[in-house]
Formats: sequence, structure tokens, C-alpha cells
Amino acid sequence: MESEPQELQELKRRLGEIRDLHRAAAVLSWDQQTYMPPGGAAARAEQLATLHRTAHTWFTSDEIGQLLEALRAPAAEWDYDSDEASLVRVTLRDYEKARRIPPALIAELARVSTLAYEAWVKAKATADFALFLPHLEKIVDLNIQIAEALGYQERLYDALLDQYEPEMKTAQVAALFEQLKAELVPIVKNIASQANPDGDAILRRPMDVQKQWDFGLSVLRDMGFDFNRGRQDKSVHPFTTSFSINDVRLTTRLDPNYFPTALFGTIHEGGHGLYEQGLSPTLERTGLDDGASLGIHESQSRLWENLIGRSRAFWTYYFPRLQQAFPEQMGDVELETFYQAINAVKPSFIRVEADEVTYNLHIMLRFELENDMLERRIPLRDLPEAWNAKMEAYLGIVPPNDALGVLQDVHWSGGMLGYFPTYSLGNLYSVQFFEKAKRDINGLLDQIAAGDFSELLKWLRQNIHQHGRKYTPAELVLKVTGKELAATDYIGYIKQKFGELYSL
Amino acid sequence: MESEPQELQELKRRLGEIRDLHRAAAVLSWDQQTYMPPGGAAARAEQLATLHRTAHTWFTSDEIGQLLEALRAPAAEWDYDSDEASLVRVTLRDYEKARRIPPALIAELARVSTLAYEAWVKAKATADFALFLPHLEKIVDLNIQIAEALGYQERLYDALLDQYEPEMKTAQVAALFEQLKAELVPIVKNIASQANPDGDAILRRPMDVQKQWDFGLSVLRDMGFDFNRGRQDKSVHPFTTSFSINDVRLTTRLDPNYFPTALFGTIHEGGHGLYEQGLSPTLERTGLDDGASLGIHESQSRLWENLIGRSRAFWTYYFPRLQQAFPEQMGDVELETFYQAINAVKPSFIRVEADEVTYNLHIMLRFELENDMLERRIPLRDLPEAWNAKMEAYLGIVPPNDALGVLQDVHWSGGMLGYFPTYSLGNLYSVQFFEKAKRDINGLLDQIAAGDFSELLKWLRQNIHQHGRKYTPAELVLKVTGKELAATDYIGYIKQKFGELYSL
Repeated sequence: MESEPQELQELKRRLGEIRDLHRAAAVLSWDQQTYMPPGGAAARAEQLATLHRTAHTWFTSDEIGQLLEALRAPAAEWDYDSDEASLVRVTLRDYEKARRIPPALIAELARVSTLAYEAWVKAKATADFALFLPHLEKIVDLNIQIAEALGYQERLYDALLDQYEPEMKTAQVAALFEQLKAELVPIVKNIASQANPDGDAILRRPMDVQKQWDFGLSVLRDMGFDFNRGRQDKSVHPFTTSFSINDVRLTTRLDPNYFPTALFGTIHEGGHGLYEQGLSPTLERTGLDDGASLGIHESQSRLWENLIGRSRAFWTYYFPRLQQAFPEQMGDVELETFYQAINAVKPSFIRVEADEVTYNLHIMLRFELENDMLERRIPLRDLPEAWNAKMEAYLGIVPPNDALGVLQDVHWSGGMLGYFPTYSLGNLYSVQFFEKAKRDINGLLDQIAAGDFSELLKWLRQNIHQHGRKYTPAELVLKVTGKELAATDYIGYIKQKFGELYSL
Repeated sequence: MESEPQELQELKRRLGEIRDLHRAAAVLSWDQQTYMPPGGAAARAEQLATLHRTAHTWFTSDEIGQLLEALRAPAAEWDYDSDEASLVRVTLRDYEKARRIPPALIAELARVSTLAYEAWVKAKATADFALFLPHLEKIVDLNIQIAEALGYQERLYDALLDQYEPEMKTAQVAALFEQLKAELVPIVKNIASQANPDGDAILRRPMDVQKQWDFGLSVLRDMGFDFNRGRQDKSVHPFTTSFSINDVRLTTRLDPNYFPTALFGTIHEGGHGLYEQGLSPTLERTGLDDGASLGIHESQSRLWENLIGRSRAFWTYYFPRLQQAFPEQMGDVELETFYQAINAVKPSFIRVEADEVTYNLHIMLRFELENDMLERRIPLRDLPEAWNAKMEAYLGIVPPNDALGVLQDVHWSGGMLGYFPTYSLGNLYSVQFFEKAKRDINGLLDQIAAGDFSELLKWLRQNIHQHGRKYTPAELVLKVTGKELAATDYIGYIKQKFGELYSL
């Protein structure tokens, strides 16, 4: 490209304004979850609806379509990796998808989800699936209509999954999950037979929340999170959001009687935050200033939380510091005891509290049930039963009620089907990336054991963060690791780490 | 009106969306001043520009004009005081004003102000007026163009003042100020001759900021500020903003060595906040969900800060509580000594630190200079000299440099001329309202002396708050007090309070 075509300038101007609305909505949502008083909820819902509706209207306008069509042919001649070619390529894909869904369908899903969420809150509180069932029926119906509108080649689920993990196919996820399941289920059974029920008692010693907060901040600083370009606040459910590449917000929650909640939550969100802070500044306000997919985003949080934060190397450096910050609670604990406690494996009912080994089995269960629902292989009223049967088959335990079972997650009530697999894909990506980083960086584990994450962060920025949404997850994984996504590295990691911990 | 015309429904729908954008911008500005990390500034400016520009484009659209024209005749038949008639009447006025200013002029003022603000920060830091002068030239030019575009009958200044104080005329302000000046200047001279330089030493005793914060919150609660529909945070410059009638945000700042900063700042912003929380819920999302004018808004903050917060009645109740919260600092102080200290009068350079008696003289000086600038009676390079001459004439002191003189306020650098008088109008309104409240409420001062503000708040809500922007300031003052705005009540108040304090 010699000089920037006028259509590209105009496209960027329009996308910039659309991105401004999305970022503004992000500020409003962040405030809603951190500081907003209860009275603000009704007006906030109207404000968010107006921002999202306007952004959608602007993005799906004929004018954007005409600009993209005018740029389609020229952009195909530009360097594939350039910001400009990527902008046209990715925005065309987004635009075509966005135009396929009738606005009435989006509005209907928003309306139904609002009611479904309220019903779900009540259903969960009373463990009464019947309250949620009629809403779930509507949500499944609408998701089928959306999938049909989006179109797909093999499976209905492909269209939904693609919203969260671009270009990923259901068949690929199913194949990966089958391999994982074959390895993980026997490991879980083996470990369950030797589980120590008091394995995490030392983690439940009361700790001052302000000191927990300070310790978390010190770890974030060491990780390389830039507090001139971000901050951490408190919220009921931890999350990461960003209002610019230079303004990234993390939240955490503090449990006075279980410090891993705050610490691992902080490290997890810190991983997301480093990704957002590491995007190339040239992508600001383009719409490519975001993670490549939910799965790739999750790979960054899981890499920091699990592969680093629950490693022996990490605690070689931090355990003496934790003992210094909490001498009463940690002074008498051995590093090895601590390491075992934070890596205790135990089948449990709640996904968000699951350990590294059992976590993916929770996801597979949801992935299989979502496909069964969408392809009408299971009447929705039988969902609790199907859930419990799979829990027994994969984890060897049965939830005593639906609040601890089929009603535990918020996602379906929010209208989202096809989202869950991205959590497990994040785990798989994280190990495949980390194995490559270990090969690329001499003495990486020694650096981590010295509290030095600078080379790792540089590697992540160079290989992953800076690209934003320029590449599909599949393109990125191939580019970074030289091979397609596979379960091999992940299975190897689990076998080695937990094989040693549990003498398997 | 039998049933709501279709045009009114459509107007409300559009105004609702426009209000959503303004409220969203308010959230972004609030975050910018409370929590945003430094890195966020550049993107935030783009986001705010997009929100404001879109809101302006939507509001000044031909469609809004057509709806208003269709409603003009029918609305004239509706009850003048009804929400619907008021909406059409006030929105017509807003629309006609907004359409008169060419968008290019608004954009140019925004651009010039951004640069002027940066220059002003530097000029103030180095007390170098020459740095700011070329920017002020442009701002005065643009304000003249805006005034010409808006149109006026007598004075150029009328058009600018009208932006902040609808329907108020320059001649009326000038007449009020002449009366004030004739009374205040001699009082200031008289007091200055007997001023006690150590009068406020007891206020400068160090106090724990967390305890200051807690004390301020307890006063806000007593005033009737609803923390389910609002909150307080910290910021460098205190302000009040709202995201809904049910989500009102106050900010304050804390000085460990001068507690009146936080306490009177909190009460002041609390007065603004009670106004916002007291608007009729039927006005939400209409654009009438705001104060009647800047002056009327200021009347509410000044009423609480000065007429209540610096009164003997208020401290009869609160001084023992202040002593209990700060026994070391206040245990040995007499109520009367404290009362004198918080009402000490002393000519000083900085407007925002001025006492009740000298404050309005600072405003008159600015009002006169703004008129001189706009009507080209003074070359702008001579402004510092003119400023200092007026300081000497009104307050008997001359600033040692321009940072303490002509450069002290941010308003001109922000492009705003015609704004300052609203501060003094707020003082005048506040006393005229309060005198009426005292006549209407039996034993009001006794209630205040018992820490009971409930009847006063009820009166303010009934007479002022609920109406929002339905009435012009002049209409509201007449409706509430039965007479036009006058300086009489204010002068009587000053003479009585400070006459007693200083044996005048």
C-alpha cells in the first residue's frame, strides 16, 4: 500500500466511533459491578441498551458494508500481517456475521435473557429447576434461530461456538475433549481414592484482607502489570475489562478465611490484564484492540494462574514472602506442604472451585449437554438428570440438589450457549504456549524461581499480546507454536505434575 | 390532554436516548476524576467527544425539530405545570438555542479550549499571563461569535449568561451586584481593620483523614442523602454528578491539616446531591431531570454549606459530636470560639477560599471584566492590571502575582464566559429561599439545633427539587418566595450575622 486509501481512512473513523461506544459501555458495566449504588440499576440498563444498540446499528450500516466491499480487493494485495490488511479481513468477517442476525432476534434474546436471569437467580436460590425451565426453552429456541441465521456447515453448535472462538469447529473440540476425557477420568478416580480431606486446612486460616490485598498487588507489580495504565478494584465476581490499551481494570474479591480466592483470582485477572496492556498501540480504537478469542484470552489468565502461580518455581520465590506477610498463619508451614495444598485434587460440584485436573471434565459435561439441547436429543425437563448422570460418570459424585448442579452457572440464563468450551480451550492453549516459551527462553523456570517474569512477559507480548484480534486462534497457535492445537502438551503436563504429586 | 399524542411518545423516546448518552458521558467524566489511571486520558477524551458529538447531532436533528413543531400548538393548551407541557416548552427553548450555534463553532471552541487549558496550567504554574494571553484572545473571539449566533436584545453577555442561567439578563445581574457592592465593600473594610490573623488556628490542628471522612458521612446521612441512591468518593476537585435520579455521586477531598476543606465541601456537595435525588421520578430520562440552572443548583449547595453548615443552630447539635470524634483537637475549644473561626472574614486572593462576605466581590470583579472583554473595552493584555485594580478597590489587597490573580480560575481556559455570576446568584437565591422556609416551617432553627433536617428537606423537595428544569429560575423564585429575586434578603442576612460577629 503506497498511501492509505480514502475508504480505509473513513472506515477507521467510523470504527473508532463504534469502539468509543463499546468502551463507554465497558466503563458503565465496570462501575455497575464495583461502585454503583443499588438505586442506579434501572437507569444503567437503559444507558447500556442505548450504547449497545447504537454501536450495533452503526456497525451493521450499509455505509460500513460499502467501505469494506471497496477495500476487499485492494486489501487482498496488502501484506497479510499488516494492521491494514488485518483490519479489513477481520472486520469483513465480523460484519458479515453481524448482518446475518436479524435485529429483532437480538432484541428478543436480550429481552428473554433479562427475564431468564431473574428467574435463574430465584431458581438457584431455591434449587428449583422448574422455575428456570420455561426460560431455558426460549433461550434454546432463540439460539437455534441465531445459529440458523448465522449458518454452519456441519453442526448447529459450530455457529454459536464461532461467536466466542472464531473459526473453531465443534468436531475439533469434541475430538480434543475425547482425548482429554480418556486420560483424565482414570486419573481423577485414582486420586479420589487417596484424597486427603484436610489437604487444604492450612489455606483456611484467617488472614487480614488488607494484607491479602497488598500481597496480591505486589505480585501483580512483579508480573509486570502497569498501574499507570490500569488498576484493581473489588467486586463480587472478579473480572477484567479495559477502556483503552492504556486503561485496563482488574477486580478481585477477598475472603478473610480462604486467601487463595483473592490471590489466585488476582493472578488470573492479572494474566487477562497483561494481555490487554500488551496489545499494539497501533490497534487502539480499531476493534482489533482485543483478545483473539475468549479461549486465547483465557490461555493468558490460566498460564499465569496455574502454570506459574501454582508451580513450585513460583513459590520458591514467593513462599518466604508469604510467610513474612503472614507469620502467624504460614510461619509453621513447609513449602512442600503448601505446594500440595494449593494443588489438591478433589472431585467437587462447582466448576469455578474445581482444581486443574477435574476442571475440564466440568466443561465437557456442559459442552455435551449444550449439543444435546440444541440438536433436540434431550427434552429440557430431563436436563438435571442428564447432568447428574454425567457428573457421576466423569467425577464419581452426584450433586445433592440442582443449585449445586445444573443451575450453578449464569451463562445459559444470559442467553449464551457455545461459550463453555473456551474455558477448556484456554487450558489447552496455555500449556501449548508455555511449553514453547520454555523451549524459547533459556532458564525460564529459574527466572520464575527468582521472581523475574520479564523475559516471559516479553515473549508473551512479542508472540501473542501485540497481535490483538489480527489472527484467528488457529492462525495464532500455529504461528506461535509451529503446530495446530492438540491435547498432547496438556495431557503431558497434567500427568507429570499430578503424577508426581500423587505418585500415580 | 386526553391521551398522549404519538409525536410526544416519539419525542420522549428520542430524548431518552439522548439523555442516556449524556448520563454515560457523566459516568466517564466521574471515573476520569476519581479512579482513572493516568494512561487512560487520551482514549477517554475520544470517548467523551464521540458521546457529546452524537448527543448533539441527535438533539439538533430535523426530526426533533419536526416533533417539537407538531407539539407546539397542542402543548400550549395543556396545563402549564404539567410534565408534558413543560417538556415541550423547555425542549423547544433548548432546541432553538442549540440549532443557532453552527457545529463548526462548537468544534472550534472545543479544540481551542483543549489547547487553552494546557497553556493555562503552565501559565498558572509559572504565574506567566503572557503564555495564556493568545489563547484567551481566541476564546473571547469565539464567545463573541457564539453570542452573535445565539442572538441577544441588549448585551452580548446576555446570550452567554443565558446558557447557564436561562432568561437571566445582564442588566438584572448588574443592578443586583451594584446593591451588593454598595453594602459589602464598606463592611469588608470595617472588618479588615479588626481582623484577627490567628482566627482560624484551631481549624488547622491535624486530624486523621479517615475520621474526617466518617464525620462527613454521618452529616450527609443526617441531611437525608440516600446512600442507596448515591455515594461519595474522593477527587482532587470536589464535584457532584448524577447518572440517574437514583444514582447521584458526590466527591470530596481531605486535608489532614485543615478539616473545613472536607467537611464544608461535603455539606456543599451534599446540597447539590439532595437536589438531584429530589427530582420527580417522572422526569427521569427526559432532559428535565436536572437543576433549573447553575444558580439554582448553587443555591442548594450554599444553603446547606453556609446558611445551615456555618450557623450557630447547626453547631449547637454537631459541636459536641465533633469534640467526641476529635477530643484531642477540639476538647479544649468553646463552641463560640469555633463558631467565630468558621465564620472568620478576611480579604484574600483566591475566590474558592473566600468567606461569605468577600466571596461575592470576587464574582463581581469577574463579571465586570468579562463584560469589558466581550465589549472590547479593555485590551486583553491589560487584564492583569485591571484585575489587580479591582481587587484593591473591592477588597483592599493586590495579588503579588497573576497565579494568585487573573490566572487562578479554570473557567476561561475551558471556554466559559458568562458562568461566574451564577455563583453569586446562588448565594442570593439561597437566602431568599431560606427566609421563606423559615416563615413556612415553625421552629425550623430549633429543628436544626436538634440535628433534624427532615422538615427542611421536605420543604426543599416540595418547593424546589421536584420541579427539575420545568421552570426558569425567575419563574421558580417567584413561585417559591412570592417575589422576584432581590438583594434585600441577602444583605439583611449578611448584616445580621456578621454585624453580630464583628459588632459592626
